[in-house]
Amino acid sequence: MPITLPDAYDLADYERLARERISEPYWAYLASLAGNGLTQRMTREAYDRLRLAPRVLADLSGASTRIRLFGASFEHPILLAPVAYHRLFHPDGEIAVAQGAGATDTPLVVSTHASTGLEDIRAASQGPQWFQLYIQPDWDFTAALVRRAEAAGYGALVVTVDAPVSLRVQARRAGFQLPPEIDAVNLRGLVAAEPQPSTLGGSPLFGGSLPPAPVWADVARLRALTRLPILLKGVMAPEDASRALAEGLDGLIVSNHGGRVLDSVPPTIEVLPAVLAAVDRRIPVLVDGGIRHGTDILKAMALGASAVLIGRPYIHGLAMAGALGVAHVVHLLRAELEVAMALTGCTGFDTAPSALAQA
Amino acid sequence: MPITLPDAYDLADYERLARERISEPYWAYLASLAGNGLTQRMTREAYDRLRLAPRVLADLSGASTRIRLFGASFEHPILLAPVAYHRLFHPDGEIAVAQGAGATDTPLVVSTHASTGLEDIRAASQGPQWFQLYIQPDWDFTAALVRRAEAAGYGALVVTVDAPVSLRVQARRAGFQLPPEIDAVNLRGLVAAEPQPSTLGGSPLFGGSLPPAPVWADVARLRALTRLPILLKGVMAPEDASRALAEGLDGLIVSNHGGRVLDSVPPTIEVLPAVLAAVDRRIPVLVDGGIRHGTDILKAMALGASAVLIGRPYIHGLAMAGALGVAHVVHLLRAELEVAMALTGCTGFDTAPSALAQA
Amino acid sequence: MPITLPDAYDLADYERLARERISEPYWAYLASLAGNGLTQRMTREAYDRLRLAPRVLADLSGASTRIRLFGASFEHPILLAPVAYHRLFHPDGEIAVAQGAGATDTPLVVSTHASTGLEDIRAASQGPQWFQLYIQPDWDFTAALVRRAEAAGYGALVVTVDAPVSLRVQARRAGFQLPPEIDAVNLRGLVAAEPQPSTLGGSPLFGGSLPPAPVWADVARLRALTRLPILLKGVMAPEDASRALAEGLDGLIVSNHGGRVLDSVPPTIEVLPAVLAAVDRRIPVLVDGGIRHGTDILKAMALGASAVLIGRPYIHGLAMAGALGVAHVVHLLRAELEVAMALTGCTGFDTAPSALAQA
Amino acid sequence: MPITLPDAYDLADYERLARERISEPYWAYLASLAGNGLTQRMTREAYDRLRLAPRVLADLSGASTRIRLFGASFEHPILLAPVAYHRLFHPDGEIAVAQGAGATDTPLVVSTHASTGLEDIRAASQGPQWFQLYIQPDWDFTAALVRRAEAAGYGALVVTVDAPVSLRVQARRAGFQLPPEIDAVNLRGLVAAEPQPSTLGGSPLFGGSLPPAPVWADVARLRALTRLPILLKGVMAPEDASRALAEGLDGLIVSNHGGRVLDSVPPTIEVLPAVLAAVDRRIPVLVDGGIRHGTDILKAMALGASAVLIGRPYIHGLAMAGALGVAHVVHLLRAELEVAMALTGCTGFDTAPSALAQA
Repeated sequence: MPITLPDAYDLADYERLARERISEPYWAYLASLAGNGLTQRMTREAYDRLRLAPRVLADLSGASTRIRLFGASFEHPILLAPVAYHRLFHPDGEIAVAQGAGATDTPLVVSTHASTGLEDIRAASQGPQWFQLYIQPDWDFTAALVRRAEAAGYGALVVTVDAPVSLRVQARRAGFQLPPEIDAVNLRGLVAAEPQPSTLGGSPLFGGSLPPAPVWADVARLRALTRLPILLKGVMAPEDASRALAEGLDGLIVSNHGGRVLDSVPPTIEVLPAVLAAVDRRIPVLVDGGIRHGTDILKAMALGASAVLIGRPYIHGLAMAGALGVAHVVHLLRAELEVAMALTGCTGFDTAPSALAQA
Repeated sequence: MPITLPDAYDLADYERLARERISEPYWAYLASLAGNGLTQRMTREAYDRLRLAPRVLADLSGASTRIRLFGASFEHPILLAPVAYHRLFHPDGEIAVAQGAGATDTPLVVSTHASTGLEDIRAASQGPQWFQLYIQPDWDFTAALVRRAEAAGYGALVVTVDAPVSLRVQARRAGFQLPPEIDAVNLRGLVAAEPQPSTLGGSPLFGGSLPPAPVWADVARLRALTRLPILLKGVMAPEDASRALAEGLDGLIVSNHGGRVLDSVPPTIEVLPAVLAAVDRRIPVLVDGGIRHGTDILKAMALGASAVLIGRPYIHGLAMAGALGVAHVVHLLRAELEVAMALTGCTGFDTAPSALAQA
Repeated sequence: MPITLPDAYDLADYERLARERISEPYWAYLASLAGNGLTQRMTREAYDRLRLAPRVLADLSGASTRIRLFGASFEHPILLAPVAYHRLFHPDGEIAVAQGAGATDTPLVVSTHASTGLEDIRAASQGPQWFQLYIQPDWDFTAALVRRAEAAGYGALVVTVDAPVSLRVQARRAGFQLPPEIDAVNLRGLVAAEPQPSTLGGSPLFGGSLPPAPVWADVARLRALTRLPILLKGVMAPEDASRALAEGLDGLIVSNHGGRVLDSVPPTIEVLPAVLAAVDRRIPVLVDGGIRHGTDILKAMALGASAVLIGRPYIHGLAMAGALGVAHVVHLLRAELEVAMALTGCTGFDTAPSALAQA
Repeated sequence: MPITLPDAYDLADYERLARERISEPYWAYLASLAGNGLTQRMTREAYDRLRLAPRVLADLSGASTRIRLFGASFEHPILLAPVAYHRLFHPDGEIAVAQGAGATDTPLVVSTHASTGLEDIRAASQGPQWFQLYIQPDWDFTAALVRRAEAAGYGALVVTVDAPVSLRVQARRAGFQLPPEIDAVNLRGLVAAEPQPSTLGGSPLFGGSLPPAPVWADVARLRALTRLPILLKGVMAPEDASRALAEGLDGLIVSNHGGRVLDSVPPTIEVLPAVLAAVDRRIPVLVDGGIRHGTDILKAMALGASAVLIGRPYIHGLAMAGALGVAHVVHLLRAELEVAMALTGCTGFDTAPSALAQA
C-alpha cells in the first residue's frame, strides 16, 4: 500500500473528501435515501440521544475489543456491510476492499451485486468474509450461488430481505447508470423476469412491475440447502425476528437498508432492544445504519448488539485511498471505540458493557 | 396528451418546478397560509413523527390499493380536493384536471369557485367527480346549484364549513387579484351582500363585515334537499363530528383548509383518531392537509382514514403539464404508496393496515 | 391623520419596516433583551405550542370582543403597555400614541418615563388611560406623581416591580444614549441617589451600585395613599400574587418586562395559570410579553387572562405612521382576534372561551 | 494594568473578539471538542432548560455572593479552572492570570501543564490558588510536585482523572503544536514512557499506546501523602463520587473536561444532583463546563453546587487584555450573577437558593 493517507481524522472528514472526489451520479447512487431522508436524520438523533457514562480511575489492564461470532474470533466488532459495485468508486473495487478489510481483521460481507467475481474477492485476502445473498426467483441459480460461496470459503450467508422493491429517486434524478464495464458479474447468466412497465393510469407496482420477492418458504428452502451460518439482514419487527429464530437461522442483522428503500422507518438502534427481546438473545443480533463514531459502536454494544456494520463510510475510504483508505476508516473508528471504552471503564464485550448513562 | 413530463420524481420536485413557473401573486394565492404557517410546519412534523414498521418476506400476491366509498369502488385512496380557479394555473383549468383525474381513476372534488362550468367539467371525463358546495346566504341559489350538480351526475356533495372568513394576508401582500377573464362562473347571478367596510376604530369583523355564514340548521335543510351523499369538509372537533353524524350526513373530511384560514390549529392527522372515535367509524372519515408522500397516505390509512385528498400538489402538476401533470402527480404518489405497502407487508385497505411502528 | 398607512398586513410587517426606519441605537434600546434572548424565544414557542380548536357551523350572531375592567367597559382586550420615551421614535411621541389609542378605544398605560408631561398626554385623547408608576426612593416625589395622575384623570395605577436593576447590554453595546431634547419630564426635580461606581475587584451591584428598590411595605403605603385601582406589574410567582391580593391590590399584570431585565425566566403565558390559581381569579390578571397575533390573544384569554398588553409592536406602528400607525397595529391585531374567534366558535369574553385544543 | 478594556459586554463578546485575535491552531487547541461537539450543545441546552423564578419587592439589604470552601472565605463562587499553557495566549501567561484572579478574589487552579513555574505563579498574587495535579506514573515525581505545591502555599490539590487518553482531533486537524519556547515547565525532568505507535491493523490504544493511567489505589496513596484538601476533578458517576468520599477526599468537581475527551457524555449540570445525592452533601461539590452567564451560575448554585469553574472564557479575557481581561471576565459574570440574584430575591449562598422555576 504505497499511497499516502488523505488528511482525514474521522469519518466526517472522509465523507467530505469523498464527496468532492466521487462524480455526482455515483455519489447520488451511494448516498441515496428514500423520501426526505427522515430515517437518516432520526438515526443520527437516536444515537445522539443515547449518552455515555464516564467512569474514572478504573483498571483498564487487559482491555480488548475482541468478539466471537459463529465460533470465530475477531479483533473488533466492526464489519463491512454488503455494498454493490465497488468498482464504481475505485478501479480495484472489491479487491481493494478485501485487502483493507483483511489488513485490519475486519469481516467483509461481499454483495451479490459485487462488480468482481466472488472467488476473486475471497482469494484477495486471508481475512474473514461472508457472502450476501439475494434469493433469486430462479432457485437453481440461487443454489448455484450458494455452492460457489461455500466452495470459495465464505464463512456465512447474509440473506437481505428488506429491499424487494425500491424507487431509487435520488439516483434516477441524478441520472445514475452503471457504466458498460461494470456489472453484477456474479449474476451473469441469470434471466430476470422483465417487469411490466406501468402506465400513468395503472398500478405502478401491484399491477405487474413488482418483481417476485422471496417469502418465508424460500428462506426455509435455503436453510435446508446449506450448513453455513445464515443471517437474515433487514429484520426490524420482533415478529419477524421470532420467525427467523423458529426457521433455524443463525443470526439477525437489524437494518433498514441504510434508509434507501423506505423513509420514516425507525432507526435500527431504537428497534434493536425489541428484536433482542424477541429472540431472547439466543442468536447473535448485529446492527447497521448510521454508525459514524466509536461512541456509536459502544452504544450499540451496550444495548446488546453482537457487532455492527458500516457501509457508506468504507466506500469513502475506498474512493480516497483504495485498500489503505478502507483500513484507515476501520482504524479511526476502532481508535474512537477504544478511547470511549477507556473513558467509560469498559474493558471488553464478553457481556454488554454498562456504558450508557441514565436518560 | 402529447406534451412531455417535467423532470420530476416526487411531489417536492413538482412544487419546486411549479414555484418557478407560476407568477408570484398566483403562487402567493395558492401557497397562502394563515399567520406564521405554524400549522403547516406542525403537520409535516406530525406525519414525520409517525413511523412505519417494516416487515419482511411477506406474501404480497393480490395486493391492491382499492377502496370503496358510498357504494363505489376506486382504484386507490387519493382524491383531488376542491381548489378554486384552476384556470389561474393552466389555460385548460378544470377541464385538464378532470382529464388527468379520469385517466388515473382519481375522484375529483370540483370547487364551487371553479373557473369552468360544473357541467363542462363533468362532461370532460368519465372519472368519478363530487361537487364541493359553499352554502350561500341565498338559499334558492344554493338549491339550484345542488340541482345542477345532481343533473350533471356528480356522485356526492362536499360541504365546506371551515372557512366562513379569512384574512388572506399572503395573497393580499402579493397583490393577488383575479384577472378579468377568470371568475367563479358557477356563482354568476348570485347577489352577494356587500360587507360593511370596517374603520380603524370599529370591529373589523363583528361590526358588520362578517359575511353571513351557514349554521347547523342550513346543513339540515340541505340534507332534506338531496339524496346525494353529503360529506362535511372542515370538521376538526369530535363534538362537530358527532353532530354531523346525528344530522344524517354521510361522511366527514377532517380538514383545516390547508392552514389557509386559521393558524396554530392542530394537524388534521393528529385530530383524525378523535374524530373517528366520535363517529364510532360508522361513516367514512377522509383527511386532507399536508399529504406529500406515499408514506403519508399509508400512515393516514393506518390511523383509520377511508381516503385522503391532495390539493396544492395537483395544481403544481396542472401548472407544469396540464392533464398529464395531474395524472403524473397522482401516479408518483401511488407508486410511493405501493412501495410503502410492499415494505410493510400491507396488501390492502379492507381494514386499516397495521403499518405503524410503536412510538 | 392625513398620512398613508405603510404596506403592512400584520405585526411582523410592522416590525420589519420599523427596523429599517429606526436608527440602530434606538432600535437596540427598543428591542433590547437580557442575556441570549432565551425568554423571548421560549415565549414564542409557548404560544405556538398552544393550539386552537376549530369549530364549525356555530351561530356567531352578537359576537363581541368587549371586556370590563374595574367597572369600565372596553371595546376589546388589547392594552398598550408602558414604554419609555416615545419621542425617540416619532416627534409626536406620547401625544400620537394617545391619539391612536383613543381612536381605537385602546387603554394606554402611560410610562413614568414618558417623554411628554402626563397631563399633556391625558389631554390628548378622550380614550382610557392608566398611569404606570415606579415607586421612587423619594416618597414625597412618588406621592406627588400619584396626585398628578389622579388630578389628570388617569383611571388606574400600574406599579412596575420587575426591573429594580438591569444591565441593558444590547443598548450599551449599540451606544444608546438619550438625545438632549428627550428626558423623563415627569421625573424632573427628582434627586436620584448617585450609584457607587463598581471596581473590577468589588461587588458590581451589592457593593453599592444597586439603587434602592421598593419593597412590599412601599406598596402598602401606596395603597393607603390613593383610591385609584392599583395593578402590580411584573408578578411571576404565585407567592407574590397571593401577597398582592392580601395587600389589597386591584389587579395583576403577569410580565417579565419583555425579557429585558433577566433572561431564562419563564414565558408569561406559562406562568399565567398558576398566578390565576394563586389569586383564585378574585382580581383581574392581565398578561403581556410576546403577543404578536390575534391567535395569541385568544389563547391568553382562553387561559383566563382579563386582557393583554402589547409594547414594542405599537412603537413600530408609531415609528411608521404616528397615531395612525398605532391605531393600525391595534386594528390588525383585533381583526386577527375576531377571525380566530369566529373560527373557534367563540362569541365573547364574559367567561374564558374554550378555544384551546387538547395538547 | 494600563491597557484598556476591549469593547466587550459579556462573555460572548469576549469569545468573538478572542477568536479573531488567537491564531487558528491555538484557537483549535483551546476550543477543541471531542466528536461532534454534542456534549457542548447539550450543555447549553441543559442550562437553557433550567428556568429562573423572578420574585418582586424582596428586601435585598445585606445581599452577598460570598461563599466558604475548606475553611476559607471567597468573595464570589467563580473559580478559574486549570488550563494548560497560558503563554500560548498572552506573553505574560499564568502570571497575568494570577494577577487578574487575585485582583478579583478569584481562586485560580493552576494546571500541572502550566507554562510557568508553579512557584512563580504563586508569587505573582496574594489571591487564593490551588494546584491541579495529574498523577504521573513516576510516583516520586508526583510526590515531589505535591511537595512543591505545599511549599509554595497552594491551598488545595485538584486531581484530574477524566482525561487519561484523548484523540484531540480538532487540534491535530488544525496542525496545532507547542512552539519551542513553551513547555510544561513543571514537568521538566519527567521521563514519559514512549507510547507504542499503533499500526493500521493493530489495536490503536489497548495494544500499547494507552499511557499508564492512575487508578483508585494511586488516589489513596496521594491521600496519605498530604494534608492539603484534595478535590477529585472529572467525577460524573454517583458510584465514583461515593468512592471518592470513602477514600477520604475533600471535594469533587463534576466535570467532563469541557467536552474535550469524550463526546455524548451528559452535561455536568444534569449530573450534579445525582453526584450530590451520592455524597449526601457531606463534601463540597463544584461544577464546571459551559458556564457563560451569571444565570448559569445561579442555576448551578440553586442545584446545590458549592462553586463553579470557568475555563475557556478567562483565556479569552487573557488573550484580549492580559490580567485586566481576566479580571473583566470575572467581573462581567459576577455582575450578571448579582442582577440575577436581585431579580429572584436571592440574598446569598449559605443555603442553595430557591431560584429555579418549576419546569
